[in-house]
Amino acid sequence: MRALIDAIIAKDNPSVVGLDPKPALIPPILLNSARTVRDVAEAYFAFNIAIIDAVYDIVPAVKPQIAMYEALGPAGLDVYVRTNEYAQTRGLYVLGDIKRGDIGSTAAAYAAHIEGTPSINGVGSTDVWHEDAVTVNPYLGSDGILPFVQAANNSNKDIFVLVKTSNPSSNELQDLRVDGFAHTVATQVAELVEQWGENSRANKYGYSRVGAVVGATHPVLGAQLRTLMPHTFFLVPGYGAQGGTADDLAGLFDENGLGALINSSRGIIGAWKHTDEAETIRTELQALNLVATSARQAALAMKNDIARVRA
Amino acid sequence: MRALIDAIIAKDNPSVVGLDPKPALIPPILLNSARTVRDVAEAYFAFNIAIIDAVYDIVPAVKPQIAMYEALGPAGLDVYVRTNEYAQTRGLYVLGDIKRGDIGSTAAAYAAHIEGTPSINGVGSTDVWHEDAVTVNPYLGSDGILPFVQAANNSNKDIFVLVKTSNPSSNELQDLRVDGFAHTVATQVAELVEQWGENSRANKYGYSRVGAVVGATHPVLGAQLRTLMPHTFFLVPGYGAQGGTADDLAGLFDENGLGALINSSRGIIGAWKHTDEAETIRTELQALNLVATSARQAALAMKNDIARVRA
Repeated sequence: MRALIDAIIAKDNPSVVGLDPKPALIPPILLNSARTVRDVAEAYFAFNIAIIDAVYDIVPAVKPQIAMYEALGPAGLDVYVRTNEYAQTRGLYVLGDIKRGDIGSTAAAYAAHIEGTPSINGVGSTDVWHEDAVTVNPYLGSDGILPFVQAANNSNKDIFVLVKTSNPSSNELQDLRVDGFAHTVATQVAELVEQWGENSRANKYGYSRVGAVVGATHPVLGAQLRTLMPHTFFLVPGYGAQGGTADDLAGLFDENGLGALINSSRGIIGAWKHTDEAETIRTELQALNLVATSARQAALAMKNDIARVRA
Repeated sequence: MRALIDAIIAKDNPSVVGLDPKPALIPPILLNSARTVRDVAEAYFAFNIAIIDAVYDIVPAVKPQIAMYEALGPAGLDVYVRTNEYAQTRGLYVLGDIKRGDIGSTAAAYAAHIEGTPSINGVGSTDVWHEDAVTVNPYLGSDGILPFVQAANNSNKDIFVLVKTSNPSSNELQDLRVDGFAHTVATQVAELVEQWGENSRANKYGYSRVGAVVGATHPVLGAQLRTLMPHTFFLVPGYGAQGGTADDLAGLFDENGLGALINSSRGIIGAWKHTDEAETIRTELQALNLVATSARQAALAMKNDIARVRA
């Protein structure tokens, strides 16, 4: 987690831009000439590059949501990888939002996301995904998570485990009261996350390589989780378009204004849609410029909005 | 679920072959000339084709585990897709073991796995993944699942929701007692699964499009879940290499010997390793032939083993 925290401090900004392209967020002119799924994927790539170039000096990280690329099949995933690679060349920490989870031997295969491909005969381990961290799903318990923890330790990278997600129906399982009602499923996962990170917290910040996903849409529970998980860095979705406000974030930071990375996707990458110029785009270049300038403004506004509530 | 059940009846066999290639399961000679990750992926493809050709007339379905392909990056996923496509041309039902799950808008993107890419301007919806069903993770609750349910209904396909997985630490979350101890997390998910399938169970078999993953390694709970989920077809991992026996399966079938699809991966695709000939392979063709004949024998043995305990 150290590389991420260093970057947050260097840019004085604990926010991350979600690179979640989908047709409704792309200026139509960029899709007009698309005739194949690969063309659509290439439009996503151009869109992403415009955004990365516009925000790389403001934000420490980007969070591409792999589902948006996976929706286009292998051509989309190719663009996911190239987006990650480009973001890394711009000095950004790339947090792959992949939410993978499976039994031990399968989780070990997924852990190639951060550790590289298996080494086979003449073919050495290769970093094919270009991610600095990934999100993972805890439903299968420790043996689905520990291969990722080991991969993170081996490769100096990080993971973020889903604890309490930002969506409305996150209550259905995550808020179930367990263990004589002293806990919920989410707080039980929180305790496991602290355990999974136990061996990687000895660094100057005290945060382990095992982070947690905690939605901005549950500020009271979020503050409780902050106390319950003193060595766990939070990835916080749900700010902005999903309804979370800066005030909802206050309890997620530690006393140094660290401990949480706040995500915004649509609020940044779709900011161009709320400009007057959106109606008068005539060329692809105009479209990309508008996407870029709007994303930069929105990223700066978000930085200032959050700065208000950091300790 | 009807296409799957029709195929199970036609082949009188409720088993599925897990296509989970990894270096340790591939005859070394097939990897000897590999120099790039793409070469490794192509070796996986040749291995898969040999197995599919050897078992397609015996089993109704194959279950490729996407993690094994994802471990090789986009080149691996390309082979995942081509494997699925080939299996479908052989008349097999392709169950993509992807265990995806996310908030609603993101789950809708993942649902492209079964519904096809989004339709955009000149680019119509395309089936890029060639799956007849996928597995999904319920940790985010209904709004992470319903987009898959809708996609399944729209495209005449199926999903299988993780309820009780086969791995040792599945107890950590799934067995937590909730709601005054009348339920566990897994039985709570089971009730949700029945609800999610409510609108798609009106067919001659009475099983909805929303199946459940229930590990063979928990026979007592499995039988309880069979009663609790009368309209839910089970995908059952954990038989064979993971320790589940045919006797453990008895309670998972309904009174017609239907209701459960039993998976074996290593037990079939790695069967060649337990033959005397494994030591004397000299050519790639010998290797593929041995993989094929061993897989076929193992698939037949599994069919007979399970037939013993079907009602």
